[in-house]
Amino acid sequence: MTAFRLLIPAILACALPLSAAAQDARSGNVASRVEDLLGRMTLEEKIGQLIITGVDQKDAPEIVARGGAGATIGLNTAQGVADIQRIARASRLGIPLLTGLDVVHGFRTLFPMPLAVASSFDTDLARQLAELSAREALASGINWTFAPMVDMGRDARWGRIVEGAGEDVLLAREMSRAQVEGYSAAGMASTLKHFVGYGGVEAGRDYDSASIPANELRNLHYPPFRSGIAAGADSVMSALSVLNGTPATADKARLTDVLKGEMRFGGFVVSDWSSIGDLIHMGVAADGAEAARKAMLAGVDMDMMSGYYAAHLLDEVRAGRVPEARIDDAARRVLGVKFRRGLFDNPQPDPSASEAAALTPELRDAARAAATRSMVLLRNENSLLPFTGKHRKIAVVGHLAQSAGEQLGPHEARGQDKDAVSILSGIRKEASTRGVDVAFSEGCDRACTDTSGFAGAVEAVQDADVSVVVLGEPREFSGEGATRSRLGFWGRQDELLDQLIATGKPVVLVIMAGRPLDISRFADRVPSILMAWYPGTEGGNAVADLLFGRSAPSARLPVTWPRSVGQVPVHYDGLTSGRPYGPASRFTLKYVDLPPGPQFPFGHGLTYTRFEYSGFRVETPSIAAEGEVRVSVDLRNAGERDGVETVQLYVRDVLASQSRPVCELKAFQKVALKPGETRRVVLAVPAAEFGFHREGGTYVVEPGEFRLWVGGDAASGTEGSFSLTSGIERGPE
Amino acid sequence: MTAFRLLIPAILACALPLSAAAQDARSGNVASRVEDLLGRMTLEEKIGQLIITGVDQKDAPEIVARGGAGATIGLNTAQGVADIQRIARASRLGIPLLTGLDVVHGFRTLFPMPLAVASSFDTDLARQLAELSAREALASGINWTFAPMVDMGRDARWGRIVEGAGEDVLLAREMSRAQVEGYSAAGMASTLKHFVGYGGVEAGRDYDSASIPANELRNLHYPPFRSGIAAGADSVMSALSVLNGTPATADKARLTDVLKGEMRFGGFVVSDWSSIGDLIHMGVAADGAEAARKAMLAGVDMDMMSGYYAAHLLDEVRAGRVPEARIDDAARRVLGVKFRRGLFDNPQPDPSASEAAALTPELRDAARAAATRSMVLLRNENSLLPFTGKHRKIAVVGHLAQSAGEQLGPHEARGQDKDAVSILSGIRKEASTRGVDVAFSEGCDRACTDTSGFAGAVEAVQDADVSVVVLGEPREFSGEGATRSRLGFWGRQDELLDQLIATGKPVVLVIMAGRPLDISRFADRVPSILMAWYPGTEGGNAVADLLFGRSAPSARLPVTWPRSVGQVPVHYDGLTSGRPYGPASRFTLKYVDLPPGPQFPFGHGLTYTRFEYSGFRVETPSIAAEGEVRVSVDLRNAGERDGVETVQLYVRDVLASQSRPVCELKAFQKVALKPGETRRVVLAVPAAEFGFHREGGTYVVEPGEFRLWVGGDAASGTEGSFSLTSGIERGPE
Repeated sequence: MTAFRLLIPAILACALPLSAAAQDARSGNVASRVEDLLGRMTLEEKIGQLIITGVDQKDAPEIVARGGAGATIGLNTAQGVADIQRIARASRLGIPLLTGLDVVHGFRTLFPMPLAVASSFDTDLARQLAELSAREALASGINWTFAPMVDMGRDARWGRIVEGAGEDVLLAREMSRAQVEGYSAAGMASTLKHFVGYGGVEAGRDYDSASIPANELRNLHYPPFRSGIAAGADSVMSALSVLNGTPATADKARLTDVLKGEMRFGGFVVSDWSSIGDLIHMGVAADGAEAARKAMLAGVDMDMMSGYYAAHLLDEVRAGRVPEARIDDAARRVLGVKFRRGLFDNPQPDPSASEAAALTPELRDAARAAATRSMVLLRNENSLLPFTGKHRKIAVVGHLAQSAGEQLGPHEARGQDKDAVSILSGIRKEASTRGVDVAFSEGCDRACTDTSGFAGAVEAVQDADVSVVVLGEPREFSGEGATRSRLGFWGRQDELLDQLIATGKPVVLVIMAGRPLDISRFADRVPSILMAWYPGTEGGNAVADLLFGRSAPSARLPVTWPRSVGQVPVHYDGLTSGRPYGPASRFTLKYVDLPPGPQFPFGHGLTYTRFEYSGFRVETPSIAAEGEVRVSVDLRNAGERDGVETVQLYVRDVLASQSRPVCELKAFQKVALKPGETRRVVLAVPAAEFGFHREGGTYVVEPGEFRLWVGGDAASGTEGSFSLTSGIERGPE
Repeated sequence: MTAFRLLIPAILACALPLSAAAQDARSGNVASRVEDLLGRMTLEEKIGQLIITGVDQKDAPEIVARGGAGATIGLNTAQGVADIQRIARASRLGIPLLTGLDVVHGFRTLFPMPLAVASSFDTDLARQLAELSAREALASGINWTFAPMVDMGRDARWGRIVEGAGEDVLLAREMSRAQVEGYSAAGMASTLKHFVGYGGVEAGRDYDSASIPANELRNLHYPPFRSGIAAGADSVMSALSVLNGTPATADKARLTDVLKGEMRFGGFVVSDWSSIGDLIHMGVAADGAEAARKAMLAGVDMDMMSGYYAAHLLDEVRAGRVPEARIDDAARRVLGVKFRRGLFDNPQPDPSASEAAALTPELRDAARAAATRSMVLLRNENSLLPFTGKHRKIAVVGHLAQSAGEQLGPHEARGQDKDAVSILSGIRKEASTRGVDVAFSEGCDRACTDTSGFAGAVEAVQDADVSVVVLGEPREFSGEGATRSRLGFWGRQDELLDQLIATGKPVVLVIMAGRPLDISRFADRVPSILMAWYPGTEGGNAVADLLFGRSAPSARLPVTWPRSVGQVPVHYDGLTSGRPYGPASRFTLKYVDLPPGPQFPFGHGLTYTRFEYSGFRVETPSIAAEGEVRVSVDLRNAGERDGVETVQLYVRDVLASQSRPVCELKAFQKVALKPGETRRVVLAVPAAEFGFHREGGTYVVEPGEFRLWVGGDAASGTEGSFSLTSGIERGPE
């Protein structure tokens, strides 16, 4: 056994991280290897590379054996992946398969959901988690992930807001880049999705259409794709949605002209699940043959599970309706990724070693640390948190506190509920080391339609010094196809919370959800509120770490937190209004039934200490377009505890040829300081970042005055300004 | 006195309707008169024509006397208007003033609000009401209205949804045309507003910006402007909002290239209130001079109350920053309207006659009839309505039932609360003729925060055979600047209704509001629901007419009625989804927390009878693009009472180069039938109507199969189909 164990690292190492560069070197010249292989392939075999087969399909082995598939998809065992890969290698040309899976925020070990990771404002963390996820998955033979999702999330009704980086384009760009780098570093092929505009579906309704003007696409929706492509993304998934009347999966102008042309994307485009077939429902294709033809001619290189490439492409080419050159191009793109990612060169991992590579202490530690760095402390009156010695008895309330599986969220890959540490367990473990009593009451079950357990919960809270109430939305109401029209806690949890608050005992509210929820009724009545998102396998330990002060909260909101569903879409970077909010006039930007502003601004998040900004200086009050703006400020930890501040720089173009956002995040930096410690923080932004695309597509940076703010969220900060003495004007790319 | 009275009609006649053609004839050649006058004007006088002065401004007489204003604005007396007009005529060139006011749905007599009139689906009614409003206003010297608003209303949060024709582009086109015709027939200058995209402000937030792709502008937002222009609209108001980054008031591409170029609009463009000044807030103008320059160069001919044209245009022209030719063009457009509308030729009305022209029995009758034809009967279980003889005691409940002024809505022009007949009065009057007892309880006041009156209301309801409960939103929470985040009844009216329902007595719910409200909690629990909108001066009599069956309801919803605010924007003509709703699959278009579909579909509205469709036939199963599609159907009044059916024809382009709406209204016809009567109804639509604009702007009608439905709302109907054997492809105009 010892010998066997020792072997594991060596085996894994073969399957594991090779930098892209190292792979290329090892692969020799990718392009020439692709051309050599392509030259030896039949038309059928080329088309085969453009097809994904479900590993659960009965005829999958037969299809793969004849070179009829270039990739697999599905939740399968390491042994199953190894078996199908062996068949592929035994086929005439022995081309290995891409083995795809939604490795979105972990594989067997679940890290916090992507919106939570974005809350960390920590690109190193995002990169690390992507790499760790990839390693764990690769050990089971999964070499291709359908992540990162880089769609903009500005409407909390949309279930998939959970899967992206939120509302801000800079954060989305950086998270896209970091995740692609992480997957690539591990040797896993990544997928940027969904091209394009999927996050803009009307009213947040999944599968509805999006209407986005051309310049907004360029300013907001394209940049995270650009940064992911620059980082080496291997594939791009076409969206399920319709953009401005054109189904994304049949959108030649954007897939071919913009993505592959203007953005120079060299990887391949894969459809979303059955989205080629959806072209028939969408009324742009009469049948499977037309759907396949339209998608292929638009630029979709690989068909995910519609079956229409397999059924029709050969005929379409033979009939001259699809040029063979287009098939060559598509196959070349797929083979290029396979060579670049080392599929031809790296041996398959030993499936028997996959279990040992999963859920290792290292992965669990990373998951726990990541979760603590992803949870946002929204409110903490009178420093109720962290718990001090005076809290001798804690009541934990809520189904979500004990149902550890919920923590995994709606993209659990191969995560298993049994592996997860519940919040209740985490608190119990920590409390026991401190001799603190913990009582638990569920209050209500998952659906929370039955209130018969409320009384028990009230009793538990009354008996305790402090309570931790875990409410939110069960994971099935988050993610794809989970459009919500209401943003409150699911079921009757609101009523439960009302009753618990009525006890007069202090309540720590822990929210578990895939999106910001409407907590307007409670935001002023609950002293401490922690947004835990879906925190993953180690979520319970992480919550305990934060509550008891073993770690300190440092995350920030990557979305503006709405007061209610009636306020969405809401985002901090709206254009300057001609009638900005004024309390005295009806005829200004406001609601007649809401206080001004959101519940919590973008970038908001508390720590266990207090930071002071002083000595703010714009180092570059006047610069040319080639220069960079630099600001510096003294940041001091003025509190009693360690803390991490997220210093944010926002900029407004004061006078421009178009209305510009009230402010836009242009830089951020996480700074860890001990109590009493001061550090000079310098933020720098190239002037080329201060531009925008006009409706015609041109990118301009306009000279003139810019205002800027440095602070801890989008609604506050120290103000300064700088001037650009020259501008930039260039084509859309 | 008798002689005097006899004179009135003659005096009024002078100020009154001359058809546009008659006016042109009388004015001789408008163009040559304009050029003649323009040739005699100084630059200062030309600029003067581009300026509106508030009649309440102290210096207004002086400004007008020196030719420094082309128009006035404000709520003023007939005498005041006559006085300022006299000063204008006494100025060097004696150019009469345009005297502008928001004559939106009446002047002194208030007709139902525009969204209510749209509910009539009756363009003759819309035309008649516009004409009557104009006559009443003209008698007070008001010759220019800032109406009709033709912005699309798809988000009930937006307060100005009250002022338009709702969500459908055909209805909006037809209502735009009808209203312009009505105003013109009376000799009043009309204003199409707001150009463009104002109805698309994000999340319905008034004064926020709009993002609308180019083809959607052409397919949805331009058409009501086109039809209004074709009908002879005199001015167009630029929107307060920003569209795709460009403030509407500085949008040369759309104001000059599209509106004045492509659409060939020959009238003048007026800014919205201070919207030239708003350009500074919007960050596209540094100061008033730049704001004036940008607006003028963009194509805004007249400045409404920013003061910047008056302050800066002369300097801008003298400095060569604004070409004098552009000033000439603007002045030419303003003068053209003045000549065309007969301002130079028609004598001013006698102000002392204005009172006698107001609130005449004819106007009151028209208001009453219009209100009955605008209220939508949403639900009527077991034919609770109309009341029969068995209802001997009626309880009327609700502040809005007695507060007649609320009925006037947020655009009351010179309407006075005291003139309006409340619902309570209307019911009392009608009930007294039948010996029916009426009890009233307010329940709560306007704000409805105090529940102390609920018990009295419950008692009143318990004592009665049936109750009429009038709930909604006070008028100040509708209209401009009245963005709502919640769509429920205002205050605690929900709780009041709960208590009244709990009595078990039958409740007729009458809703008074400027938009659809969230009634999801009540829709199945209240047997009869009548949407009264803001019904105007005679609203109370109209409600009584409907409740007691003196009239029968015939109106239809011009908006999809949402289940809740979380469902908006919602509209019936969404694009076909790739994943249309299916009850069995999570991965289809739906909400996880709502039943499918809206509360009530577009086009919905009950009558007091029952209509049967039979013998449906598509007369033209196959036609060329030059032809028209004709369908016919036998419509039978199968019930016991007179009724008016609104026959609606919806069409879907089954297979196209783009995703097309699930269905689009293409024709409608109101048909009045006696019980047992049958009529063959024929609906015809030119094939050229079945096209759409592509993203590049081209308008195409694509050959192929179309599906169609004929029925009583957007969610039902008898299905048929036809084929277009040829297509159309033409430029954007």
